[in-house]
Amino acid sequence: MYAIGIDIGGMSIKAGLVDGNGQIVCSNRSVTDKNQEQSLKNIISQIEDLLSEKSVSVKDIKGIGIGCPGLISSEEGVVDHNSNMKWENFHIVDLLKERFDTVIKLSNDANVAALGETIYGAAKNYQNVVMLTLGTGVGGGIIIDNKIYEGGYSKGAELGHMVIVKGGEKCGCGRRGCLEAYASATGLIRMTKKEMQKNSKSIMWDYVNGDIDKVGGKTAFECSKQGDVSAKKVVRKFVGYLAEGIINFANIFRPEAFIIGGGVSAQGDYLIDKLKKYCEKFNYGYKNAPKPEIVTATLGNDAGIIGAAALVL
Amino acid sequence: MYAIGIDIGGMSIKAGLVDGNGQIVCSNRSVTDKNQEQSLKNIISQIEDLLSEKSVSVKDIKGIGIGCPGLISSEEGVVDHNSNMKWENFHIVDLLKERFDTVIKLSNDANVAALGETIYGAAKNYQNVVMLTLGTGVGGGIIIDNKIYEGGYSKGAELGHMVIVKGGEKCGCGRRGCLEAYASATGLIRMTKKEMQKNSKSIMWDYVNGDIDKVGGKTAFECSKQGDVSAKKVVRKFVGYLAEGIINFANIFRPEAFIIGGGVSAQGDYLIDKLKKYCEKFNYGYKNAPKPEIVTATLGNDAGIIGAAALVL
Repeated sequence: MYAIGIDIGGMSIKAGLVDGNGQIVCSNRSVTDKNQEQSLKNIISQIEDLLSEKSVSVKDIKGIGIGCPGLISSEEGVVDHNSNMKWENFHIVDLLKERFDTVIKLSNDANVAALGETIYGAAKNYQNVVMLTLGTGVGGGIIIDNKIYEGGYSKGAELGHMVIVKGGEKCGCGRRGCLEAYASATGLIRMTKKEMQKNSKSIMWDYVNGDIDKVGGKTAFECSKQGDVSAKKVVRKFVGYLAEGIINFANIFRPEAFIIGGGVSAQGDYLIDKLKKYCEKFNYGYKNAPKPEIVTATLGNDAGIIGAAALVL
Repeated sequence: MYAIGIDIGGMSIKAGLVDGNGQIVCSNRSVTDKNQEQSLKNIISQIEDLLSEKSVSVKDIKGIGIGCPGLISSEEGVVDHNSNMKWENFHIVDLLKERFDTVIKLSNDANVAALGETIYGAAKNYQNVVMLTLGTGVGGGIIIDNKIYEGGYSKGAELGHMVIVKGGEKCGCGRRGCLEAYASATGLIRMTKKEMQKNSKSIMWDYVNGDIDKVGGKTAFECSKQGDVSAKKVVRKFVGYLAEGIINFANIFRPEAFIIGGGVSAQGDYLIDKLKKYCEKFNYGYKNAPKPEIVTATLGNDAGIIGAAALVL
């Protein structure tokens, strides 16, 4: 049985026909249009193209799942607000239902990615999972018994906005010291630059050809692998912040596994081993409770389509 | 329809017959015995006494609910470990089932209190609630759709052990900077003493007759009400830590309400108004999401019995 997954992003809308094993059979994409009506038309065309490409009718699919960034009312099927795309009060589920007579579900993109990774990806052996996506910000997804837990009004699971350093670095949300301000790529880059400014001899300067504006999420990690003392210090700090967040969530949810996604997760075991070591030191919060596994996301850019399809599969 | 609620504490075991409106019809208590067999015998006698007192048979009750501190495996009905009572691997549910042929459920005491307050107490108009009990430590209870959320293996909801000040005050759990290290009565007393040592003219010294060992959870609050600058500072700090914890949980769970329980909650509106003011300043984490209510617990010492009965009512 197939389902369609729609992965809405700030730049593009990706759609895919997904089979019961979570494999993408075929896919397409359109450019995200700030005009909601145009984006709706694009999505309808994309779905029709997928169905005709595989000669599948709407009756033959289990439904359509949609993942979208921003403020979502999942029960109502509405994108309340997305500042990046300038969408407001977009009743996407009802509008699509006018065209397609099937089950249609909507959730936040971070939740959807977590669901995809739990059902078909990195955590497919687990039912209770917390996913942290480390990118510009820190996205969160909570899976309880193989289902997304969105929090009240589908407005919870904002895991990046947990203060771990009261009075610390400013966060975009208006508070200070959020996990996002430290454990995101943005936080990592800030810490890297700060450390470089303290040590003009660090090989991180060579790595960016002397241009501090070229510092990225890889800079400290790659130079740390080469033994650079300042870079190692940055990685150690970054791991410490992220691990404190993980232990906090372990105490709250005691999941079977954590999934680390986003650009920084490309560091793989070099990051995960350090995280585990830090968490072990503090018994993952509680020495008498089972220790969660920590894994990196495996679905990559496909997590959005597959996770969206998993909403209805 | 009646249910029996058993509230196990370090000092005493309280049992009550509770009606469908969450009212305690009759109750009794025994001294908690470190010998598990003896405590079991006491509980059985207590239940039998309650039933005979109201001429109710086991068939006429909906079941028996038990709240117990320590490490609980709720599905298995086992008290894994309680360091205070020296209990280990106490299969309390199975042992009681040998005597009483009815539904018997067990959960952690903090969870049970949260359930009682949600169904019959301070938050009875809400279905999604987070309760923080401020005592020696900070206990946590999470209610989702009127049911206890215990976390994986029934070992989550350890809300007091969320680091909010990385590298901060030492916590009993082995980490530094946990909410419990600041927002408990213990944390409040430590902050009060520290502030008193900085200011020998504070009226807090008079409040404790010059004996710093007499400082309690009320000292700073009562002197703050009288306008003492140092006491006000302590209260402001305490509120800040607790509010950061509340906003963190708002972002994670977006509950309809928070319940503040435990000794410190006796401060009532004097505490709650300050908490709300702090949380408002940061939009409860997220200006586009509904604001949770903050209320004080109303069931007091009865929360344990009523909440335990609510497990089966």
